[in-house]
Amino acid sequence: MKKGVMRPGHVQLRVLDMEEAVKHYRDLMGLIEMHTDASGRVYLKGWTEVDKYSVVLREADSAGMDFMGFKVVDEATLDSLRQELIDFGGLDVQDIPAGDLDGCGRRVRFTAPTGHVFELFATKEQTGKYGVGHHNPEAWPRDLKGMKATRFDHCLLYGDDLDTTYRLFTEVLGFCLAEQVVDPEGNRVAQFLTASMKAHDVAFIKHGEKNKLHHASFFLETWNDVLLAGDLISMTNTSIDIGPTRHGLTHGQTIYFFDPSGNRNEVFAGGDYHYPDHPPVTWDADKLGKAIFYHDRVLNERFLTVLT
Amino acid sequence: MKKGVMRPGHVQLRVLDMEEAVKHYRDLMGLIEMHTDASGRVYLKGWTEVDKYSVVLREADSAGMDFMGFKVVDEATLDSLRQELIDFGGLDVQDIPAGDLDGCGRRVRFTAPTGHVFELFATKEQTGKYGVGHHNPEAWPRDLKGMKATRFDHCLLYGDDLDTTYRLFTEVLGFCLAEQVVDPEGNRVAQFLTASMKAHDVAFIKHGEKNKLHHASFFLETWNDVLLAGDLISMTNTSIDIGPTRHGLTHGQTIYFFDPSGNRNEVFAGGDYHYPDHPPVTWDADKLGKAIFYHDRVLNERFLTVLT
Amino acid sequence: MKKGVMRPGHVQLRVLDMEEAVKHYRDLMGLIEMHTDASGRVYLKGWTEVDKYSVVLREADSAGMDFMGFKVVDEATLDSLRQELIDFGGLDVQDIPAGDLDGCGRRVRFTAPTGHVFELFATKEQTGKYGVGHHNPEAWPRDLKGMKATRFDHCLLYGDDLDTTYRLFTEVLGFCLAEQVVDPEGNRVAQFLTASMKAHDVAFIKHGEKNKLHHASFFLETWNDVLLAGDLISMTNTSIDIGPTRHGLTHGQTIYFFDPSGNRNEVFAGGDYHYPDHPPVTWDADKLGKAIFYHDRVLNERFLTVLT
Amino acid sequence: MKKGVMRPGHVQLRVLDMEEAVKHYRDLMGLIEMHTDASGRVYLKGWTEVDKYSVVLREADSAGMDFMGFKVVDEATLDSLRQELIDFGGLDVQDIPAGDLDGCGRRVRFTAPTGHVFELFATKEQTGKYGVGHHNPEAWPRDLKGMKATRFDHCLLYGDDLDTTYRLFTEVLGFCLAEQVVDPEGNRVAQFLTASMKAHDVAFIKHGEKNKLHHASFFLETWNDVLLAGDLISMTNTSIDIGPTRHGLTHGQTIYFFDPSGNRNEVFAGGDYHYPDHPPVTWDADKLGKAIFYHDRVLNERFLTVLT
Repeated sequence: MKKGVMRPGHVQLRVLDMEEAVKHYRDLMGLIEMHTDASGRVYLKGWTEVDKYSVVLREADSAGMDFMGFKVVDEATLDSLRQELIDFGGLDVQDIPAGDLDGCGRRVRFTAPTGHVFELFATKEQTGKYGVGHHNPEAWPRDLKGMKATRFDHCLLYGDDLDTTYRLFTEVLGFCLAEQVVDPEGNRVAQFLTASMKAHDVAFIKHGEKNKLHHASFFLETWNDVLLAGDLISMTNTSIDIGPTRHGLTHGQTIYFFDPSGNRNEVFAGGDYHYPDHPPVTWDADKLGKAIFYHDRVLNERFLTVLT
Repeated sequence: MKKGVMRPGHVQLRVLDMEEAVKHYRDLMGLIEMHTDASGRVYLKGWTEVDKYSVVLREADSAGMDFMGFKVVDEATLDSLRQELIDFGGLDVQDIPAGDLDGCGRRVRFTAPTGHVFELFATKEQTGKYGVGHHNPEAWPRDLKGMKATRFDHCLLYGDDLDTTYRLFTEVLGFCLAEQVVDPEGNRVAQFLTASMKAHDVAFIKHGEKNKLHHASFFLETWNDVLLAGDLISMTNTSIDIGPTRHGLTHGQTIYFFDPSGNRNEVFAGGDYHYPDHPPVTWDADKLGKAIFYHDRVLNERFLTVLT
Repeated sequence: MKKGVMRPGHVQLRVLDMEEAVKHYRDLMGLIEMHTDASGRVYLKGWTEVDKYSVVLREADSAGMDFMGFKVVDEATLDSLRQELIDFGGLDVQDIPAGDLDGCGRRVRFTAPTGHVFELFATKEQTGKYGVGHHNPEAWPRDLKGMKATRFDHCLLYGDDLDTTYRLFTEVLGFCLAEQVVDPEGNRVAQFLTASMKAHDVAFIKHGEKNKLHHASFFLETWNDVLLAGDLISMTNTSIDIGPTRHGLTHGQTIYFFDPSGNRNEVFAGGDYHYPDHPPVTWDADKLGKAIFYHDRVLNERFLTVLT
Repeated sequence: MKKGVMRPGHVQLRVLDMEEAVKHYRDLMGLIEMHTDASGRVYLKGWTEVDKYSVVLREADSAGMDFMGFKVVDEATLDSLRQELIDFGGLDVQDIPAGDLDGCGRRVRFTAPTGHVFELFATKEQTGKYGVGHHNPEAWPRDLKGMKATRFDHCLLYGDDLDTTYRLFTEVLGFCLAEQVVDPEGNRVAQFLTASMKAHDVAFIKHGEKNKLHHASFFLETWNDVLLAGDLISMTNTSIDIGPTRHGLTHGQTIYFFDPSGNRNEVFAGGDYHYPDHPPVTWDADKLGKAIFYHDRVLNERFLTVLT
């Protein structure tokens, strides 16, 4: 049952060149640039997000994901989940004081068995939906740019210990298994987990290495926006991975591309919804091509192997 | 905070002629006809719904809504919410045994201060998504009809005591106030309540009479489907109310029409999402025209006064 | 058979306040402002149009249409059509020298039996598709505004003598009758005429007065753009007439609104196509509601009576 | 200038197994099966086409195109174009009597310098738009299947002598060059030709062999229909080539796949329009990847080499 985790609240990504990265996430993807902190990190968000930011870019020597944070419903829930994380064992739970991220309250950080760093927090400055607010709000702001990404939606992560991570997210954090890929021996090789109605708030793929980012994903309103995203990728000579196409898993309508540092991005629309009483959707591993790319029904090598 | 109510599970509607009604809900709206019970009630659902049914039609002398049911996460939650309903006071809480609706477990029924009959239940037979199931599921079944309504989404109800009903749904049932219309004196004259990420799972409009149905609403995938729904309304000489248009409230894309008994239906696509930490969206009553019909910015008399 | 008229080349509209009008046609409708001439007229076009302009705004004391011009395929065709217009009789054919409109060659002007002023021309400066040109062209320019109207498409005109005007456009100018509305006595009360594959390049409705403009119409790419147009109409407090909806006639997807001077505009997407060997589509006058507004199937008074 | 050719009127395709082929073109692509002639050929059409058929399937030992026919505006035009074809020289002009194709008048057949067989005709039985006709027509028929292809749109053909074929189509048949790909030496290696406003009614790619079919193309209403076409391709285990994507050339939104005999089909939506006074759009051969697949900007080997 749901235990108070609401949604992905932020992801901190490492980029090689901040100026190029901001141009990519702001001008091409259409995220709203909100803030730069004293250490030079740039904070952005999708226009429909009420909290002040959901993406933090940090300039570094290698690309990848520093951490992904989930917002919980209140501080009391944060306390109880913190204790449950400690009780779970082996997670290296750390307390990050308020203010380490500008405008964000204290965070409880832990490293999942897949090697990825996650954190929980209950408090973040709210600036409201960009350009429309919550008093007689217009349908959308007129000054959006590029792909007009509406929100940070989820990350897909590659790592080794899926089973313990599954127990952690379902038993401690109250996520549900929305979709899975199972190999002939019955092992789960992909798990799509949700704390909401969304088909996934975070997903994991079985992989030999720990702590790899496959992609950070952002939501678009329509399949037509996926087309226009593809057009913008071409107009800006951005490196494309694949799409527009549909996924089998979640049935979302998608396109993949790379930021200038090599981090993979997805923008997508549509997709299935999930409630806690729904049985998980199961794909057989021998249908993996169709599960990932519903139209082509074959995987491309790049999609499987390029990680940051 | 969320207390275990997941979603609108069913609505029972009164219709004057069952044959005509089934033709409307099945052939025009595209719901899947699942079952007829011993008393002649017909059970239907949207194709994406996992439970066996979400709409129950009962032939009667007058149109309207018999009751609306919410599914809760498990039987223990049903027990605790039953006690909280009793403790709330004045609700006439009743226990309906399993089997009163075919395939549905026991229900806890109560009459809200607006006069509407609601019920909670935890168990219903699951037949899976129509035509695709949950094992290597195709994107959609090829034999859908008419508007291809994907799910029963919400009801909009007219009644008198909005304040106590608001307390009931938020304090006892764990709903959030997603949107509201407030008059110059600060009274809430419309409240859109959600137990999920959806902009509304049930909504109430202030009205002099108790227990009136404004409309039962069903979800479509896209704005293009709203266009095709309008086309089908015309092709079938179905009585239209208004649309295609966009709402200000929730920003959904919508069209309204009437079933052969005079019950108003909505099919819609898109719309905003809500999390528990989001402040409610507030519309001023003097912007009601724009709040309801975002494009026209004026209300039509029929929309305000025709109820069942 | 086709006789060399290619398309509507321009319309000159009278506006009461040039600054407000430019704001409407450029910032709201998304036409490209190209030029202002010595007399203060402002020239604009849709971004896909190759010729330099298609809309000319002239400040005046009353709103309405000064004239509509059709581009013919070459100067020799202009000569022969000029002679045929004279031979037709009663048209007051005039020669307007090159340069009267900046960048436009000589025009042959005539007044149709409905009282509307039309002109033919063969030569106009070509600036290419806005922002993309015709060498390795991108899919669309990134700096479009508002409704992103792609082209001036047609005018709908109200006037008295439809029969002679029909003969003029079909026999002399080579237009085809794509669609018509016929009253019980067999009289044509609406005629939609095309010189191309488009469902109409100009249309006429039977009316007691001569020389009235019902609307000037512009093409959008998709039904989704019609939705966004409706949103923009609301955001800018622009006076709406009706829509989004579909027409029965031509089956286009449409929304109507007014410029600040009271001239009606349409933006629309989709619609049927016509070839010269196709029989005209005929609507019975008693189906006029459905013919005009396919979803509502009733006419509103404003749509029938507000003209400029 | 236009000389009376209206549109592609039909294509006759060779298929290896008629039953499988009909299932593909009727049930998957949604063409309407109209007729089977005495020799076993099956006649189909898109639902918006007024003539009785546009696709003729003939069972044979090898796949490919037998011939493509263009409809001209009347019999007198057919006579004059027949003479011009003879005067052009070297075309092996033949007269096919009325009735050789059921419901079709006499045809004037010729072999183009690329080796492809074309024909002109002026008369074919008209059955009207399928399911709606031309008297108070509904927006669309309710019993369409599969991809709901609206019309046969064009063929893309591979052959050797593009220059003479260009002269033939422009000088004799009155086509315009809408788009072209030009190599560094200034040779045209692709030519997209139109007799209408469509971006292409027939197109040719330079190739070492004569008389090869790259694909027969059919029009869909929207980009959403392209998505659903992709879904149907997957659901039916149909061999996909590429898409959904956008073309650079014509900017249409497209998906490619193969019929059971190996003939490539395209369904597409959108795309640019062309008038005779528009300069041709020119793509440089070193931009061929982007010209063909606007998003990926690289060609796949299969698209270039698999022909029938």
